[in-house]
Amino acid sequence: MTDANVPHFLEELEQLKVRLLAMGALAEDRVRSAMRALVEGDHDALERVLTGDNAINQLHVEIDDRCVKLLALHQPMAVDLRAIVSAVKINADLERVGDLAVNIAEAAARYMTHSPVKPLIDIPRMALIAQEMLRDALDAYVRRDVTMAHRVLNRDDELDGLKTLVFKELLGYMQRDKATVAGSLDLILISRHLERIGDHATNVAEDVIFMVSARDVRHHSDE
Amino acid sequence: MTDANVPHFLEELEQLKVRLLAMGALAEDRVRSAMRALVEGDHDALERVLTGDNAINQLHVEIDDRCVKLLALHQPMAVDLRAIVSAVKINADLERVGDLAVNIAEAAARYMTHSPVKPLIDIPRMALIAQEMLRDALDAYVRRDVTMAHRVLNRDDELDGLKTLVFKELLGYMQRDKATVAGSLDLILISRHLERIGDHATNVAEDVIFMVSARDVRHHSDE
Repeated sequence: MTDANVPHFLEELEQLKVRLLAMGALAEDRVRSAMRALVEGDHDALERVLTGDNAINQLHVEIDDRCVKLLALHQPMAVDLRAIVSAVKINADLERVGDLAVNIAEAAARYMTHSPVKPLIDIPRMALIAQEMLRDALDAYVRRDVTMAHRVLNRDDELDGLKTLVFKELLGYMQRDKATVAGSLDLILISRHLERIGDHATNVAEDVIFMVSARDVRHHSDE
Repeated sequence: MTDANVPHFLEELEQLKVRLLAMGALAEDRVRSAMRALVEGDHDALERVLTGDNAINQLHVEIDDRCVKLLALHQPMAVDLRAIVSAVKINADLERVGDLAVNIAEAAARYMTHSPVKPLIDIPRMALIAQEMLRDALDAYVRRDVTMAHRVLNRDDELDGLKTLVFKELLGYMQRDKATVAGSLDLILISRHLERIGDHATNVAEDVIFMVSARDVRHHSDE
Protein backbone atom coordinates (compact mmCIF):
# COMPACT_ATOMS: atom_id res chain seq x y z
CA MET A 1 0.00 0.00 0.00
CA THR A 2 1.52 3.38 -0.94
CA ASP A 3 1.70 6.03 1.77
CA ALA A 4 -0.68 8.37 -0.04
CA ASN A 5 -3.36 5.72 0.18
CA VAL A 6 -3.10 5.11 3.90
CA PRO A 7 -5.50 7.78 5.25
CA HIS A 8 -8.04 6.87 2.60
CA PHE A 9 -7.68 3.18 3.44
CA LEU A 10 -8.17 3.75 7.17
CA GLU A 11 -11.26 5.82 6.49
CA GLU A 12 -12.67 3.09 4.23
CA LEU A 13 -11.92 0.44 6.83
CA GLU A 14 -13.73 2.55 9.42
CA GLN A 15 -16.72 2.84 7.09
CA LEU A 16 -16.71 -0.92 6.66
CA LYS A 17 -16.97 -1.36 10.44
CA VAL A 18 -19.82 1.16 10.60
CA ARG A 19 -21.73 -0.70 7.90
CA LEU A 20 -21.14 -4.08 9.56
CA LEU A 21 -22.48 -2.67 12.83
CA ALA A 22 -25.53 -1.31 10.97
CA MET A 23 -26.06 -4.76 9.45
CA GLY A 24 -25.75 -6.34 12.91
CA ALA A 25 -28.24 -3.86 14.39
CA LEU A 26 -30.72 -4.59 11.60
CA ALA A 27 -30.35 -8.35 12.04
CA GLU A 28 -30.78 -8.06 15.80
CA ASP A 29 -33.80 -5.80 15.38
CA ARG A 30 -35.44 -8.36 13.12
CA VAL A 31 -34.86 -11.13 15.67
CA ARG A 32 -36.37 -8.88 18.37
CA SER A 33 -39.46 -8.18 16.22
CA ALA A 34 -39.91 -11.86 15.41
CA MET A 35 -39.79 -12.66 19.12
CA ARG A 36 -42.28 -9.87 19.88
CA ALA A 37 -44.61 -11.41 17.31
CA LEU A 38 -44.28 -14.76 19.08
CA VAL A 39 -44.50 -13.60 22.69
CA GLU A 40 -46.99 -10.73 22.41
CA GLY A 41 -48.85 -11.87 19.29
CA ASP A 42 -47.85 -8.58 17.65
CA HIS A 43 -49.05 -8.80 14.04
CA ASP A 44 -47.35 -5.56 12.95
CA ALA A 45 -44.01 -6.84 14.17
CA LEU A 46 -44.65 -10.10 12.34
CA GLU A 47 -45.44 -8.32 9.09
CA ARG A 48 -42.31 -6.17 9.38
CA VAL A 49 -40.11 -9.25 9.64
CA LEU A 50 -41.86 -11.20 6.89
CA THR A 51 -41.74 -8.40 4.33
CA GLY A 52 -38.93 -6.07 5.38
CA ASP A 53 -35.67 -7.80 4.45
CA ASN A 54 -34.77 -5.31 1.75
CA ALA A 55 -32.50 -3.12 3.87
CA ILE A 56 -30.45 -6.02 5.19
CA ASN A 57 -30.15 -7.59 1.75
CA GLN A 58 -28.88 -4.34 0.27
CA LEU A 59 -26.33 -3.96 3.06
CA HIS A 60 -25.20 -7.54 2.49
CA VAL A 61 -24.38 -6.80 -1.14
CA GLU A 62 -22.85 -3.42 -0.30
CA ILE A 63 -20.52 -4.80 2.39
CA ASP A 64 -19.22 -7.60 0.15
CA ASP A 65 -18.61 -4.99 -2.50
CA ARG A 66 -16.70 -2.78 -0.07
CA CYS A 67 -14.52 -5.71 0.98
CA VAL A 68 -13.60 -6.64 -2.60
CA LYS A 69 -12.82 -3.00 -3.44
CA LEU A 70 -10.68 -2.58 -0.32
CA LEU A 71 -8.70 -5.70 -1.23
CA ALA A 72 -8.31 -4.64 -4.86
CA LEU A 73 -7.39 -1.00 -4.30
CA HIS A 74 -5.31 -1.09 -1.14
CA GLN A 75 -3.80 -4.57 -0.98
CA PRO A 76 -3.76 -4.55 2.82
CA MET A 77 -1.50 -6.82 4.86
CA ALA A 78 -1.50 -8.65 8.19
CA VAL A 79 -4.26 -7.70 10.63
CA ASP A 80 -5.93 -5.32 8.14
CA LEU A 81 -6.10 -8.04 5.51
CA ARG A 82 -7.53 -10.46 8.04
CA ALA A 83 -10.03 -7.81 9.19
CA ILE A 84 -11.41 -7.58 5.65
CA VAL A 85 -11.50 -11.34 5.08
CA SER A 86 -13.29 -11.61 8.44
CA ALA A 87 -15.75 -8.91 7.36
CA VAL A 88 -16.71 -11.03 4.33
CA LYS A 89 -17.47 -13.96 6.63
CA ILE A 90 -19.22 -11.89 9.31
CA ASN A 91 -21.37 -10.31 6.62
CA ALA A 92 -22.53 -13.78 5.52
CA ASP A 93 -23.27 -14.72 9.13
CA LEU A 94 -25.34 -11.58 9.72
CA GLU A 95 -27.34 -12.15 6.56
CA ARG A 96 -28.14 -15.66 7.79
CA VAL A 97 -29.28 -14.21 11.14
CA GLY A 98 -31.69 -12.01 9.18
CA ASP A 99 -33.01 -15.11 7.37
CA LEU A 100 -33.39 -16.89 10.70
CA ALA A 101 -35.53 -13.98 11.96
CA VAL A 102 -37.82 -14.71 9.00
CA ASN A 103 -37.86 -18.42 9.90
CA ILE A 104 -38.81 -17.50 13.49
CA ALA A 105 -41.55 -15.18 12.23
CA GLU A 106 -42.94 -17.91 9.94
CA ALA A 107 -43.14 -20.33 12.88
CA ALA A 108 -44.61 -17.54 15.07
CA ALA A 109 -47.30 -16.90 12.44
CA ARG A 110 -48.32 -20.56 12.62
CA TYR A 111 -48.09 -20.54 16.42
CA MET A 112 -50.54 -17.60 16.62
CA THR A 113 -53.20 -19.76 15.00
CA HIS A 114 -53.13 -22.38 17.81
CA SER A 115 -53.96 -22.06 21.49
CA PRO A 116 -50.75 -21.29 23.39
CA VAL A 117 -48.95 -24.42 24.59
CA LYS A 118 -47.38 -22.92 27.69
CA PRO A 119 -46.12 -19.64 29.12
CA LEU A 120 -42.94 -18.80 27.22
CA ILE A 121 -39.93 -18.39 29.50
CA ASP A 122 -36.95 -20.39 28.20
CA ILE A 123 -37.41 -19.41 24.55
CA PRO A 124 -37.40 -15.62 25.18
CA ARG A 125 -34.38 -16.27 27.40
CA MET A 126 -32.66 -18.07 24.51
CA ALA A 127 -33.45 -15.08 22.28
CA LEU A 128 -31.91 -12.63 24.76
CA ILE A 129 -28.73 -14.70 25.07
CA ALA A 130 -28.42 -15.10 21.29
CA GLN A 131 -28.89 -11.36 20.74
CA GLU A 132 -26.36 -10.48 23.41
CA MET A 133 -23.85 -12.91 21.93
CA LEU A 134 -24.31 -11.33 18.52
CA ARG A 135 -23.92 -7.79 19.86
CA ASP A 136 -20.85 -8.68 21.93
CA ALA A 137 -19.25 -10.52 19.00
CA LEU A 138 -19.66 -7.47 16.77
CA ASP A 139 -18.35 -5.17 19.51
CA ALA A 140 -15.36 -7.48 19.82
CA TYR A 141 -14.81 -7.18 16.05
CA VAL A 142 -14.89 -3.40 16.10
CA ARG A 143 -12.61 -3.16 19.16
CA ARG A 144 -10.43 -6.10 18.05
CA ASP A 145 -10.98 -7.45 21.56
CA VAL A 146 -10.02 -11.12 21.89
CA THR A 147 -11.07 -11.41 25.55
CA MET A 148 -14.57 -10.27 24.69
CA ALA A 149 -14.68 -12.72 21.77
CA HIS A 150 -13.77 -15.59 24.11
CA ARG A 151 -16.62 -14.60 26.43
CA VAL A 152 -19.02 -15.00 23.49
CA LEU A 153 -17.71 -18.51 22.80
CA ASN A 154 -18.29 -19.48 26.42
CA ARG A 155 -21.97 -18.56 26.27
CA ASP A 156 -22.77 -21.00 23.47
CA ASP A 157 -23.09 -23.93 25.91
CA GLU A 158 -25.72 -22.02 27.88
CA LEU A 159 -27.79 -21.70 24.70
CA ASP A 160 -27.33 -25.37 23.80
CA GLY A 161 -28.42 -26.38 27.29
CA LEU A 162 -31.62 -24.37 27.02
CA LYS A 163 -32.34 -25.82 23.58
CA THR A 164 -32.09 -29.37 24.95
CA LEU A 165 -34.31 -28.43 27.91
CA VAL A 166 -36.95 -26.88 25.62
CA PHE A 167 -36.86 -29.90 23.30
CA LYS A 168 -37.43 -32.43 26.09
CA GLU A 169 -40.16 -30.41 27.74
CA LEU A 170 -42.10 -29.82 24.51
CA LEU A 171 -41.69 -33.41 23.35
CA GLY A 172 -43.33 -34.39 26.66
CA TYR A 173 -46.27 -32.02 26.01
CA MET A 174 -46.74 -33.43 22.50
CA GLN A 175 -46.73 -37.02 23.71
CA ARG A 176 -49.25 -36.31 26.46
CA ASP A 177 -51.74 -34.10 24.59
CA LYS A 178 -52.39 -34.18 20.83
CA ALA A 179 -53.85 -30.68 20.93
CA THR A 180 -50.39 -29.27 21.69
CA VAL A 181 -48.59 -31.02 18.82
CA ALA A 182 -48.63 -28.29 16.19
CA GLY A 183 -47.85 -25.48 18.65
CA SER A 184 -45.08 -27.39 20.40
CA LEU A 185 -43.51 -28.22 17.05
CA ASP A 186 -43.38 -24.52 16.14
CA LEU A 187 -41.72 -23.74 19.47
CA ILE A 188 -39.13 -26.47 18.97
CA LEU A 189 -38.31 -25.08 15.52
CA ILE A 190 -38.00 -21.56 16.96
CA SER A 191 -35.61 -22.75 19.66
CA ARG A 192 -33.48 -24.35 16.90
CA HIS A 193 -33.43 -21.08 14.97
CA LEU A 194 -32.30 -19.22 18.10
CA GLU A 195 -29.57 -21.77 18.72
CA ARG A 196 -28.35 -21.17 15.18
CA ILE A 197 -28.23 -17.42 15.78
CA GLY A 198 -25.93 -18.25 18.68
CA ASP A 199 -23.84 -20.36 16.28
CA HIS A 200 -23.48 -17.40 13.95
CA ALA A 201 -22.42 -15.19 16.87
CA THR A 202 -19.86 -17.88 17.70
CA ASN A 203 -18.58 -17.78 14.11
CA VAL A 204 -18.16 -14.02 14.38
CA ALA A 205 -16.28 -14.35 17.67
CA GLU A 206 -13.96 -16.96 16.13
CA ASP A 207 -13.28 -14.62 13.21
CA VAL A 208 -12.32 -11.89 15.68
CA ILE A 209 -9.79 -14.15 17.38
CA PHE A 210 -8.39 -15.19 14.01
CA MET A 211 -8.21 -11.57 12.88
CA VAL A 212 -6.37 -10.28 15.94
CA SER A 213 -4.12 -13.15 16.83
CA ALA A 214 -3.79 -14.84 13.40
CA ARG A 215 -4.54 -17.96 15.38
CA ASP A 216 -7.37 -20.16 14.27
CA VAL A 217 -9.36 -21.25 17.33
CA ARG A 218 -12.01 -23.06 15.38
CA HIS A 219 -12.17 -26.78 15.93
CA HIS A 220 -10.00 -26.56 19.04
CA SER A 221 -12.70 -26.14 21.66
CA ASP A 222 -11.18 -28.84 23.84
CA GLU A 223 -7.79 -27.16 24.20
CA MET B 1 1.32 -8.99 -9.16
CA THR B 2 4.83 -9.22 -10.64
CA ASP B 3 5.32 -11.43 -13.68
CA ALA B 4 7.67 -13.78 -11.87
CA ASN B 5 4.85 -14.60 -9.47
CA VAL B 6 2.24 -15.47 -12.09
CA PRO B 7 2.97 -19.18 -12.62
CA HIS B 8 3.26 -19.69 -8.90
CA PHE B 9 -0.03 -17.85 -8.35
CA LEU B 10 -1.91 -19.93 -10.93
CA GLU B 11 -0.57 -23.10 -9.40
CA GLU B 12 -1.66 -21.95 -5.94
CA LEU B 13 -5.12 -21.02 -7.24
CA GLU B 14 -5.39 -24.48 -8.80
CA GLN B 15 -4.43 -26.05 -5.47
CA LEU B 16 -7.11 -23.98 -3.75
CA LYS B 17 -9.74 -25.38 -6.14
CA VAL B 18 -8.51 -28.93 -5.51
CA ARG B 19 -8.75 -28.45 -1.76
CA LEU B 20 -12.24 -26.92 -2.00
CA LEU B 21 -13.38 -29.91 -4.07
CA ALA B 22 -11.88 -32.25 -1.46
CA MET B 23 -13.77 -30.35 1.23
CA GLY B 24 -16.98 -30.61 -0.80
CA ALA B 25 -16.48 -34.35 -1.33
CA LEU B 26 -15.92 -34.85 2.41
CA ALA B 27 -19.03 -32.83 3.30
CA GLU B 28 -21.12 -34.73 0.77
CA ASP B 29 -19.78 -38.06 1.99
CA ARG B 30 -20.78 -37.19 5.53
CA VAL B 31 -24.32 -36.30 4.43
CA ARG B 32 -24.51 -39.62 2.56
CA SER B 33 -23.34 -41.56 5.64
CA ALA B 34 -25.83 -39.75 7.88
CA MET B 35 -28.63 -40.65 5.47
CA ARG B 36 -27.45 -44.27 5.34
CA ALA B 37 -27.63 -44.34 9.13
CA LEU B 38 -31.21 -43.06 8.95
CA VAL B 39 -32.50 -45.17 6.07
CA GLU B 40 -30.64 -48.44 6.65
CA GLY B 41 -30.09 -48.14 10.40
CA ASP B 42 -26.36 -48.42 9.73
CA HIS B 43 -24.64 -47.89 13.09
CA ASP B 44 -21.11 -47.79 11.66
CA ALA B 45 -22.09 -45.00 9.27
CA LEU B 46 -23.69 -43.17 12.21
CA GLU B 47 -20.55 -43.46 14.29
CA ARG B 48 -18.36 -42.22 11.42
CA VAL B 49 -20.43 -39.05 11.11
CA LEU B 50 -20.68 -38.39 14.84
CA THR B 51 -16.98 -38.75 15.52
CA GLY B 52 -15.19 -38.13 12.25
CA ASP B 53 -15.27 -34.37 11.64
CA ASN B 54 -11.53 -33.92 12.08
CA ALA B 55 -10.59 -34.07 8.39
CA ILE B 56 -13.19 -31.51 7.34
CA ASN B 57 -12.29 -29.18 10.21
CA GLN B 58 -8.61 -29.29 9.28
CA LEU B 59 -9.42 -28.56 5.65
CA HIS B 60 -11.61 -25.66 6.74
CA VAL B 61 -8.71 -24.03 8.55
CA GLU B 62 -6.25 -24.86 5.76
CA ILE B 63 -8.41 -23.37 3.00
CA ASP B 64 -8.96 -20.11 4.87
CA ASP B 65 -5.24 -19.95 5.41
CA ARG B 66 -4.53 -20.52 1.72
CA CYS B 67 -6.96 -17.73 0.80
CA VAL B 68 -5.37 -15.20 3.14
CA LYS B 69 -1.87 -16.11 1.91
CA LEU B 70 -2.92 -15.84 -1.75
CA LEU B 71 -4.37 -12.39 -1.10
CA ALA B 72 -1.30 -11.25 0.85
CA LEU B 73 1.40 -12.59 -1.46
CA HIS B 74 -0.11 -12.12 -4.92
CA GLN B 75 -2.57 -9.25 -4.62
CA PRO B 76 -4.81 -10.67 -7.34
CA MET B 77 -7.29 -8.54 -9.26
CA ALA B 78 -10.69 -8.86 -10.94
CA VAL B 79 -11.98 -12.40 -11.41
CA ASP B 80 -9.03 -13.99 -9.55
CA LEU B 81 -9.62 -11.73 -6.55
CA ARG B 82 -13.31 -12.56 -6.58
CA ALA B 83 -12.48 -16.28 -6.92
CA ILE B 84 -10.49 -16.13 -3.68
CA VAL B 85 -13.10 -14.09 -1.79
CA SER B 86 -15.69 -16.61 -3.02
CA ALA B 87 -13.50 -19.47 -1.81
CA VAL B 88 -13.56 -18.00 1.71
CA LYS B 89 -17.35 -17.97 1.63
CA ILE B 90 -17.73 -21.38 -0.02
CA ASN B 91 -15.37 -22.83 2.59
CA ALA B 92 -17.66 -21.57 5.36
CA ASP B 93 -20.70 -23.03 3.57
CA LEU B 94 -19.06 -26.43 3.20
CA GLU B 95 -18.06 -26.50 6.84
CA ARG B 96 -21.70 -25.83 7.77
CA VAL B 97 -22.79 -28.71 5.52
CA GLY B 98 -20.45 -30.94 7.51
CA ASP B 99 -22.09 -29.70 10.73
CA LEU B 100 -25.53 -30.37 9.27
CA ALA B 101 -24.48 -33.95 8.54
CA VAL B 102 -23.78 -34.26 12.28
CA ASN B 103 -27.21 -32.76 13.06
CA ILE B 104 -28.83 -35.31 10.72
CA ALA B 105 -26.87 -38.13 12.37
CA GLU B 106 -27.94 -36.97 15.85
CA ALA B 107 -31.61 -37.02 14.80
CA ALA B 108 -31.06 -40.39 13.06
CA ALA B 109 -29.58 -41.81 16.27
CA ARG B 110 -32.75 -40.81 18.13
CA TYR B 111 -34.95 -42.09 15.28
CA MET B 112 -33.31 -45.54 15.47
CA THR B 113 -34.61 -45.90 19.04
CA HIS B 114 -38.31 -45.58 17.99
CA SER B 115 -40.41 -47.79 15.75
CA PRO B 116 -40.25 -46.39 12.19
CA VAL B 117 -42.99 -43.86 11.46
CA LYS B 118 -43.32 -44.56 7.74
CA PRO B 119 -41.34 -45.80 4.73
CA LEU B 120 -38.88 -43.05 3.88
CA ILE B 121 -39.24 -41.77 0.32
CA ASP B 122 -39.37 -37.96 0.24
CA ILE B 123 -36.55 -37.44 2.74
CA PRO B 124 -33.99 -39.59 0.87
CA ARG B 125 -35.14 -37.76 -2.27
CA MET B 126 -34.45 -34.43 -0.55
CA ALA B 127 -30.98 -35.70 0.37
CA LEU B 128 -30.22 -36.68 -3.23
CA ILE B 129 -31.31 -33.28 -4.54
CA ALA B 130 -29.32 -31.41 -1.88
CA GLN B 131 -26.20 -33.46 -2.61
CA GLU B 132 -26.55 -32.95 -6.37
CA MET B 133 -27.01 -29.21 -5.87
CA LEU B 134 -23.87 -29.09 -3.78
CA ARG B 135 -21.82 -31.09 -6.30
CA ASP B 136 -23.07 -29.02 -9.24
CA ALA B 137 -22.41 -25.75 -7.42
CA LEU B 138 -18.81 -26.77 -6.74
CA ASP B 139 -18.36 -27.95 -10.34
CA ALA B 140 -19.70 -24.58 -11.46
CA TYR B 141 -17.12 -22.88 -9.21
CA VAL B 142 -14.22 -24.89 -10.63
CA ARG B 143 -15.35 -24.39 -14.24
CA ARG B 144 -16.49 -20.79 -13.63
CA ASP B 145 -19.74 -21.87 -15.29
CA VAL B 146 -22.59 -19.39 -14.70
CA THR B 147 -25.21 -21.44 -16.59
CA MET B 148 -24.58 -24.39 -14.34
CA ALA B 149 -24.78 -22.14 -11.26
CA HIS B 150 -28.18 -20.87 -12.38
CA ARG B 151 -29.41 -24.45 -12.71
CA VAL B 152 -28.50 -25.00 -9.05
CA LEU B 153 -30.52 -21.95 -8.01
CA ASN B 154 -33.56 -23.28 -9.88
CA ARG B 155 -33.56 -26.54 -7.93
CA ASP B 156 -33.97 -24.86 -4.55
CA ASP B 157 -37.77 -24.55 -5.01
CA GLU B 158 -38.00 -28.30 -5.56
CA LEU B 159 -36.34 -28.87 -2.20
CA ASP B 160 -38.54 -26.32 -0.44
CA GLY B 161 -41.64 -27.98 -1.90
CA LEU B 162 -40.60 -31.37 -0.57
CA LYS B 163 -39.84 -29.89 2.84
CA THR B 164 -43.36 -28.43 3.08
CA LEU B 165 -44.88 -31.74 1.93
CA VAL B 166 -42.88 -33.69 4.54
CA PHE B 167 -43.83 -31.22 7.27
CA LYS B 168 -47.57 -31.44 6.58
CA GLU B 169 -47.58 -35.20 6.28
CA LEU B 170 -45.64 -35.78 9.49
CA LEU B 171 -47.65 -33.21 11.43
CA GLY B 172 -50.71 -35.24 10.43
CA TYR B 173 -49.14 -38.45 11.73
CA MET B 174 -48.24 -36.79 15.03
CA GLN B 175 -51.74 -35.42 15.53
CA ARG B 176 -53.37 -38.78 14.82
CA ASP B 177 -51.08 -41.09 16.76
CA LYS B 178 -49.07 -40.18 19.87
CA ALA B 179 -46.73 -43.11 19.32
CA THR B 180 -45.34 -41.41 16.20
CA VAL B 181 -44.59 -38.06 17.85
CA ALA B 182 -40.92 -38.49 18.70
CA GLY B 183 -40.05 -40.23 15.42
CA SER B 184 -41.95 -37.76 13.26
CA LEU B 185 -40.28 -34.87 15.02
CA ASP B 186 -36.84 -36.31 14.20
CA LEU B 187 -37.83 -36.68 10.54
CA ILE B 188 -39.10 -33.09 10.39
CA LEU B 189 -35.81 -31.86 11.83
CA ILE B 190 -33.85 -33.94 9.31
CA SER B 191 -35.85 -32.49 6.42
CA ARG B 192 -35.00 -29.01 7.72
CA HIS B 193 -31.31 -29.89 7.84
CA LEU B 194 -31.47 -31.13 4.25
CA GLU B 195 -33.22 -27.97 3.14
CA ARG B 196 -30.39 -25.98 4.70
CA ILE B 197 -27.81 -28.02 2.81
CA GLY B 198 -29.68 -26.89 -0.31
CA ASP B 199 -29.45 -23.30 0.96
CA HIS B 200 -25.68 -23.65 1.29
CA ALA B 201 -25.46 -25.04 -2.26
CA THR B 202 -27.48 -22.01 -3.35
CA ASN B 203 -25.00 -19.72 -1.60
CA VAL B 204 -22.14 -21.39 -3.46
CA ALA B 205 -23.95 -21.00 -6.79
CA GLU B 206 -24.55 -17.31 -6.08
CA ASP B 207 -20.87 -16.86 -5.29
CA VAL B 208 -19.99 -18.45 -8.64
CA ILE B 209 -22.20 -15.98 -10.51
CA PHE B 210 -20.70 -13.08 -8.55
CA MET B 211 -17.18 -14.36 -9.21
CA VAL B 212 -17.60 -14.74 -12.97
CA SER B 213 -19.85 -11.85 -13.85
CA ALA B 214 -19.05 -9.47 -10.98
CA ARG B 215 -22.82 -9.25 -10.72
CA ASP B 216 -24.47 -9.92 -7.42
CA VAL B 217 -27.56 -12.04 -8.01
CA ARG B 218 -28.38 -12.47 -4.38
CA HIS B 219 -31.64 -10.94 -3.23
CA HIS B 220 -32.88 -10.56 -6.82
CA SER B 221 -34.72 -13.85 -7.11
CA ASP B 222 -37.78 -12.06 -8.50
CA GLU B 223 -35.96 -10.53 -11.45
